[in-house]
Amino acid sequence: MAPQYAPSLRSRLAPLLLLLQTGFIVVFAFYVDIETHSFNTDLTSNFYAEFQDVHVIVFLGFGFLSTFLIRYGFSGVGFNLLVAATATQWAILLNGLESWYHRGKISLNLRSLVVADMCTASALISIGTVLGKTNPVQLTALALLEVTGFVLNEWLLHSLLRVQLLNSIMQLHIFGSLFGLALTWVLYRRGSEQRFEKEKSGYESGLFSMMGSVFMWMFWPSFNSVLVDERTPERHLEVVCGTYLALAAGAVAAAAVAVLLNPEGKLSLVQLQSCIQAGGVAVGVSASAVHQPWEAMTIGFSAAVLSAVGVQYLKVHMLLAHQCQDTRNVLSTHGIPGLLGWTAHLLLQLWDSEDHTMAIRFAVFHLCTLFVTLTLSLLMGIITGILLKWNFWRTPQDKKCFDDQAFWEFPHLAVRK
Amino acid sequence: MAPQYAPSLRSRLAPLLLLLQTGFIVVFAFYVDIETHSFNTDLTSNFYAEFQDVHVIVFLGFGFLSTFLIRYGFSGVGFNLLVAATATQWAILLNGLESWYHRGKISLNLRSLVVADMCTASALISIGTVLGKTNPVQLTALALLEVTGFVLNEWLLHSLLRVQLLNSIMQLHIFGSLFGLALTWVLYRRGSEQRFEKEKSGYESGLFSMMGSVFMWMFWPSFNSVLVDERTPERHLEVVCGTYLALAAGAVAAAAVAVLLNPEGKLSLVQLQSCIQAGGVAVGVSASAVHQPWEAMTIGFSAAVLSAVGVQYLKVHMLLAHQCQDTRNVLSTHGIPGLLGWTAHLLLQLWDSEDHTMAIRFAVFHLCTLFVTLTLSLLMGIITGILLKWNFWRTPQDKKCFDDQAFWEFPHLAVRK
Amino acid sequence: MAPQYAPSLRSRLAPLLLLLQTGFIVVFAFYVDIETHSFNTDLTSNFYAEFQDVHVIVFLGFGFLSTFLIRYGFSGVGFNLLVAATATQWAILLNGLESWYHRGKISLNLRSLVVADMCTASALISIGTVLGKTNPVQLTALALLEVTGFVLNEWLLHSLLRVQLLNSIMQLHIFGSLFGLALTWVLYRRGSEQRFEKEKSGYESGLFSMMGSVFMWMFWPSFNSVLVDERTPERHLEVVCGTYLALAAGAVAAAAVAVLLNPEGKLSLVQLQSCIQAGGVAVGVSASAVHQPWEAMTIGFSAAVLSAVGVQYLKVHMLLAHQCQDTRNVLSTHGIPGLLGWTAHLLLQLWDSEDHTMAIRFAVFHLCTLFVTLTLSLLMGIITGILLKWNFWRTPQDKKCFDDQAFWEFPHLAVRK
Repeated sequence: MAPQYAPSLRSRLAPLLLLLQTGFIVVFAFYVDIETHSFNTDLTSNFYAEFQDVHVIVFLGFGFLSTFLIRYGFSGVGFNLLVAATATQWAILLNGLESWYHRGKISLNLRSLVVADMCTASALISIGTVLGKTNPVQLTALALLEVTGFVLNEWLLHSLLRVQLLNSIMQLHIFGSLFGLALTWVLYRRGSEQRFEKEKSGYESGLFSMMGSVFMWMFWPSFNSVLVDERTPERHLEVVCGTYLALAAGAVAAAAVAVLLNPEGKLSLVQLQSCIQAGGVAVGVSASAVHQPWEAMTIGFSAAVLSAVGVQYLKVHMLLAHQCQDTRNVLSTHGIPGLLGWTAHLLLQLWDSEDHTMAIRFAVFHLCTLFVTLTLSLLMGIITGILLKWNFWRTPQDKKCFDDQAFWEFPHLAVRK
Repeated sequence: MAPQYAPSLRSRLAPLLLLLQTGFIVVFAFYVDIETHSFNTDLTSNFYAEFQDVHVIVFLGFGFLSTFLIRYGFSGVGFNLLVAATATQWAILLNGLESWYHRGKISLNLRSLVVADMCTASALISIGTVLGKTNPVQLTALALLEVTGFVLNEWLLHSLLRVQLLNSIMQLHIFGSLFGLALTWVLYRRGSEQRFEKEKSGYESGLFSMMGSVFMWMFWPSFNSVLVDERTPERHLEVVCGTYLALAAGAVAAAAVAVLLNPEGKLSLVQLQSCIQAGGVAVGVSASAVHQPWEAMTIGFSAAVLSAVGVQYLKVHMLLAHQCQDTRNVLSTHGIPGLLGWTAHLLLQLWDSEDHTMAIRFAVFHLCTLFVTLTLSLLMGIITGILLKWNFWRTPQDKKCFDDQAFWEFPHLAVRK
Repeated sequence: MAPQYAPSLRSRLAPLLLLLQTGFIVVFAFYVDIETHSFNTDLTSNFYAEFQDVHVIVFLGFGFLSTFLIRYGFSGVGFNLLVAATATQWAILLNGLESWYHRGKISLNLRSLVVADMCTASALISIGTVLGKTNPVQLTALALLEVTGFVLNEWLLHSLLRVQLLNSIMQLHIFGSLFGLALTWVLYRRGSEQRFEKEKSGYESGLFSMMGSVFMWMFWPSFNSVLVDERTPERHLEVVCGTYLALAAGAVAAAAVAVLLNPEGKLSLVQLQSCIQAGGVAVGVSASAVHQPWEAMTIGFSAAVLSAVGVQYLKVHMLLAHQCQDTRNVLSTHGIPGLLGWTAHLLLQLWDSEDHTMAIRFAVFHLCTLFVTLTLSLLMGIITGILLKWNFWRTPQDKKCFDDQAFWEFPHLAVRK
């Protein structure tokens, strides 16, 4: 009976994970050690608290956010943990490549764990688009490729355009969502225009995903500010307060617009979850140019409005017109707010710059940044998609989509005594 | 079909929220900026960690606490987020009025975000009394009025009686609960003596609200200590340890008394949730006079006993005798423990004071504090109630009470493929 | 009707708790005060953030971890809170005995709260073995005895073998699980080979326990590092990074092995929850000897593999061959990884030591440590078991096992209007 259930797991997932994990350990043994100096900047002040908040966003937030499908909760939270645990280790290695090249060793500290968590977050965003239509082997492969692409993008931005780490990391929303969209476009299943049997949310599943969602919402200020240079506490404060206010403004705007757009004039919990994050995303991307609270609030407000419009119309449009099925509204949650943030960054910088030449130079530079990110994310997404289409991975059949039973054992119902 | 469902949302909630949010952004643009000096005290030590804990209490704690009703979970947590996001922005402005008057600008820092979160908490306490019987427009209006009243109370206490911010903020339990009681008394619906059809808790909803409840319970020490002056770390430690012990003592006492009072000799999860917080509330109100662990524990113990008695008898009594329906046991969770904390503060201060005259002066001063808070909270509650009775708000009909379906879209159950 | 439901609660639990709590308050009044000097080391850096993380593990983590049984969620999380609140107070007193003996007073600071939380954690581990088959009176008694035994063990290790506090505290996994196993062996109920009627997990209950589980997983780095001396930040960093990587490696390995061992080749959420913690446990026990990331990862990997094997085979074997029913897989979650951590500690220390004589001395010393812990835990477990068999406690009947209805009032289903 075994082969009929999840053939992908035993013959594919287990060897892949064991191989990967053994490989990681071997590489770590030769090339990674703990940084013993400069720990002072790491462990002072609130870095550790923010590190844990980011950790909560990545492992609990994204995990429970994915439980909104009525029969896909175990997979949502379980595979999220699994994939994130693999991807962070991979990200630590990739991010350390440069240091390895120069020093022969990769130094580990709290900061590198946070950066790895964030690279993982970009992969978890991508996963949102194909949630329910892929098996965990595919998700693991996807995450490794996405993280590779993302780190490559970071490196390109840094070496070609001298973009600072903080700014390139925050591209994770744009990179992750476009990668995911290209991927789900390649992986399109014929007949997806009609909902799958289990592609719907339920009451308890809605509350579970709301829990993940509220945790993400609460901890965005830490996510956006954790990598801000500790030596500029006033910048840190600006980002924390800005994100806080953008999220508040965004939540209020999202609810208002959602009610206006809904045909029955009601709210939808799952849709709301997508829009309330928009403020945090947009301010994160534009963080280094936002200095005034009202700027952050305006960005948050606009991002939430666009996101609410996107959730209501764009998801269906993408599906029907472009054969691009985006399970968790990633385009509206991360993509559009990310692009808005990018635009806001540009406008604010132009506004601030006194010199005309400088302004134009910045605009060109900023456009190049976006161009590199877009190209690389779409390209990598398409390549990954083509790779994942390969029969080798044993993609779940249509009728097994959005269903935990394909992968998870359920408690026996027959008992005695 | 639209008008039959939640007529209040589209024509009332959306315009109100958009208007409010735009207004906030405009006011913030002119009058609010980030405080760039003195950030050092904010960002050192554990202020940020405590700030996040308070954030969790306000947005997640109160939100999930309100999911205990079997068909009101979406509203409980969703409206909580919405109202809190609106109220914090309002509270930031109101709390900054004095600084605006003197300097022309409102300075924003982590401390002002925490204070705003706390003012919001007082509104969320009030909302507990009318949970399920109001629509989100009413909840938003209520929150804005409650926060206004609360800040006014704070200002009166400060300018008339020279009460310190920390002490006046901690009146939030008393102010919030009495405001709520007055409000629900005015908004009484005939026939409420008999339970509404959906006014009951369920199994999963009980666990969800337990989650919110445990988070509040765990983070009370941060809630009570966050505003203690950082320059007196020994006071900080006293409040943290005191709250921790009061909560532990309170939880144990609450369970014992609940079992004794229950007619079947069993525990009730929802009732227990109300009582276990009592210790934290009472110690919070009396924080500035509590120095010894055993004092905190005694206060926690007594508060939990009173709270358990209140939950068992007072709720029904208030409903039948005074036509005051208190959905979330706010009187017993915040009101009575708050008053007990006030009394404990008085007694401890009298006990400590060596001088007879000083003692009497303090007692008079302390009575005045309570008198102002009581008067203002009841008055504002009644005024708010009368305002909310206005037909304009489209109060939900009796049969739509305690029901998410009036406001939330439910996932379509009919699917194909 | 009352006596037929939970006779244990009213006549046993309530008096016990009230007596205990009153006793605690009296003892605290005479012998405990807040430490007013040296608070600096406590409140600097991230101690407070880590304190809260430990708090979350003990009260929320263990609580929701215990909700996996389909009809035992209220008891799982409710009794956990109750027992933990009692046990921490008891642990504060016991841990302070030495200071009381020398100074006549017990000093309270954040550190002593953390240590008390950890002693409580060892009791909560033990409780996992008898979950569902005991009433709250028994759980409270068990927790008090377990904490007593654990503190005694700590004291023995310290006074006989000069083991440092950090190392002896981390024995909590070994002590707690063996105590629990001995206990459940004594309390064995005839006929338990066949599952009890309600001894199974469900869909929502699986997600609730996953929530608790993910919180524990995320906050293990704080749990393992919080007691590391603050004056050696590089040690702190090593433990945090090590635990982080061990957990990641462990989660990946656990999933792979679980799939390989499962007869249907699927994953089981509840089993996975047991294995993913293994890495954190094993690294915690061996923390003081682990310096390289790859060492931590190897330990995490091996612990997870052993734990997954244990969950699949050992639980049933223990039940059928040794009449030892371990409800929450405590042996595989804490026991085996704990022993592996102990072994890893030994091997790493031998590897590091240059001197032959020193190595042998350490091995003997380390063996003695284990011997004392094993003996005391098993002995105390057996004694506690015999004590709890006493009819006085009114053990729940077989048909009431794993059922909330014996202890908790359920919302009335009959309503009017």
